[in-house]
Amino acid sequence: MTTIDIPEGSLFGLDNLPYGVFSTPGTQPRVGVRVGDSVVDLAVALGDDVFARPSLNAFMAQGYDRWVEVRARVSDLVRGEVPADAVFPVSEVELHLPVEVADYVDFYASEHHASNLGRLFRPDAEPLMPNWKHLPVGYHGRSGTVVVSGTDIVRPCGQRKAPDEAAPTFGECRRLDIEAELGFIVGVPSPLGSPVSTEDFPRHVFGAVLVNDWSARDIQAWEYVPLGPFLGKSFATSISPWVVPLLALEAARVPTPEQSPEPLPYLRESSPWGLDIALSVSWNGQEVSRPPYREMYWSPAQMLAHMTVNGASSRTGDLYASGTISGPEKNQRGAFIELTWGGKEPIELNGEPRTFLLDGDEVVISATAPGTEGRIGFGEVRGRILPATEAKR
Amino acid sequence: MTTIDIPEGSLFGLDNLPYGVFSTPGTQPRVGVRVGDSVVDLAVALGDDVFARPSLNAFMAQGYDRWVEVRARVSDLVRGEVPADAVFPVSEVELHLPVEVADYVDFYASEHHASNLGRLFRPDAEPLMPNWKHLPVGYHGRSGTVVVSGTDIVRPCGQRKAPDEAAPTFGECRRLDIEAELGFIVGVPSPLGSPVSTEDFPRHVFGAVLVNDWSARDIQAWEYVPLGPFLGKSFATSISPWVVPLLALEAARVPTPEQSPEPLPYLRESSPWGLDIALSVSWNGQEVSRPPYREMYWSPAQMLAHMTVNGASSRTGDLYASGTISGPEKNQRGAFIELTWGGKEPIELNGEPRTFLLDGDEVVISATAPGTEGRIGFGEVRGRILPATEAKR
Repeated sequence: MTTIDIPEGSLFGLDNLPYGVFSTPGTQPRVGVRVGDSVVDLAVALGDDVFARPSLNAFMAQGYDRWVEVRARVSDLVRGEVPADAVFPVSEVELHLPVEVADYVDFYASEHHASNLGRLFRPDAEPLMPNWKHLPVGYHGRSGTVVVSGTDIVRPCGQRKAPDEAAPTFGECRRLDIEAELGFIVGVPSPLGSPVSTEDFPRHVFGAVLVNDWSARDIQAWEYVPLGPFLGKSFATSISPWVVPLLALEAARVPTPEQSPEPLPYLRESSPWGLDIALSVSWNGQEVSRPPYREMYWSPAQMLAHMTVNGASSRTGDLYASGTISGPEKNQRGAFIELTWGGKEPIELNGEPRTFLLDGDEVVISATAPGTEGRIGFGEVRGRILPATEAKR
Repeated sequence: MTTIDIPEGSLFGLDNLPYGVFSTPGTQPRVGVRVGDSVVDLAVALGDDVFARPSLNAFMAQGYDRWVEVRARVSDLVRGEVPADAVFPVSEVELHLPVEVADYVDFYASEHHASNLGRLFRPDAEPLMPNWKHLPVGYHGRSGTVVVSGTDIVRPCGQRKAPDEAAPTFGECRRLDIEAELGFIVGVPSPLGSPVSTEDFPRHVFGAVLVNDWSARDIQAWEYVPLGPFLGKSFATSISPWVVPLLALEAARVPTPEQSPEPLPYLRESSPWGLDIALSVSWNGQEVSRPPYREMYWSPAQMLAHMTVNGASSRTGDLYASGTISGPEKNQRGAFIELTWGGKEPIELNGEPRTFLLDGDEVVISATAPGTEGRIGFGEVRGRILPATEAKR
């Protein structure tokens, strides 16, 4: 048996206890909990095979009461003695995609982001569409290309046409961007024909991860009318490896910004709550933005209620992301297209003027939130840009 | 042992041999082949456990050479004697969703449909967007709500706002529609960063099914700008239970309509081929349209090449559909919004003027194509509309 040391000020204290999927050399991926700088193998520590699997899905499907029970057991366990063969230094494990992603939906829930992109993509029109304050706008993304933090991102190729060009050309994306987002993971499914009410949100959603929804702005701009983004987004979406349980985020609840006009009844909550999560975006090691999740207009419960109000079922492993998190200040914008105003206002990065991503660049998004004892961490979602591979021109 | 009788003129002769997933009372779903009016249990007939599974995915992943081999073996087998316990009348089996759907993409590959919808949704603009003839426009749909033919469709609820209304209201969809489409199923996956060329199409795509992409036009019209259709489509997409192998469709190959301007190199084929598949749409037993697949502008291989050109991976079980199939004639339109011109020109259905779907209506889409010996059939995709369930208003 061993005891787990939690360093002073750790973002992974007893009030966090996020779940992930890890392996050590020569072993199969399985479920672990992060405590301080250690990972606890839950199949070994709790003697339960539901954790001896390469994703959280089976455990998440067991439901809210079980989530509460396991969290309490893990908390008790790590305060005392843990079997030595269940504990690994986090620096010595490999982290995998924590969930088998079912459907992936991306929302557009930041008023500041939607307004900025409206101004950039449709300069001659009202920045916010008439529907935006009535419903959380969203669309489906490609679940097969959701990858775990650390996966290299190959610069995509595709068609793009600048407004002053007569015809599209094929080639490497020239406006490769990030979107700093928060993603919510459904644990308990809902059947076809059964909308999930805003009140039922905590019984369905297991936890949250950081998301970088890589975006090829030139490809997106040419393709997206009228059916929405497709290849401009589908090449990769990175998520952080640690799923922070909603149960760990209770101290982070804050009211959403005032919603006016009042939403339709199916979107109402007794008190709509968002989350006081502070993100940080680093580009080649330099922090370039601090997006505040608390500024998001639509709440996590409203997004789920909207996604299912037409009777669509949801499945264990569904991932729905918030859309880019941007605050009202320039240094709170969660995408480079906003930070650099479409590339027209470069920012200074390590002494150089920069707009979009170059090959070799690395982006790290991290986040913290209030816990019950201090602050808790989401860890990070990291990705490095590799050059485009040769494709037929 | 027994022999299988194939009725004269059957659409399920030896030149078809589509695969599906079936069960008999008290047994587990497994893979079968349809021959005449019989279903052959392949796990029993061929003694291979890859067919003793509730989806075609494991078999499809085995690849092109294996598809050819199994097709030849099945063809030999059913010409001779088959174990009696491997043969069931099709009328006595239950048919299930044939594949575990990974990602679902819907294209927009009919020029007639895209032009008609452009005129209806954006009456003051050019009907075809500038990008339409340069790339196959597509978007991701909800794979979790793909259902098998025969599944009842509950009328969805959602937000809708007519142009003359000041604010949206919540309620039942009032403009419930169909979209008659063809869907292609990926058998052999392609890894992240490896586009599938048009030439490689036959080594990746296993077969085709009929698709009814149910559409709530009023919900769609209000929500779809700028990120595309979401709840207007995600409540249900029905597919036919029999997957017709591409190997059975060689006699149905026809050139696509002329493509002008010439597509970019990654979309070129030595000779782009479409499929001469004749669809029929029946509404409450009356045929209302005969959409011709041969009129589709973009070819199946072009759609796959486009979907992966940005490096997106594809997975076994990916389903990509063509979008609504509409020909140049009015009675060839594959959606009611086109057939009735946005509801302004009702059609006569069993003596009554009708526009969109009413509760209790049933729609059946069927199709045939040339085989090597006669015509081959896709069977049908059928769905009946049930009244909306009570939701919070």
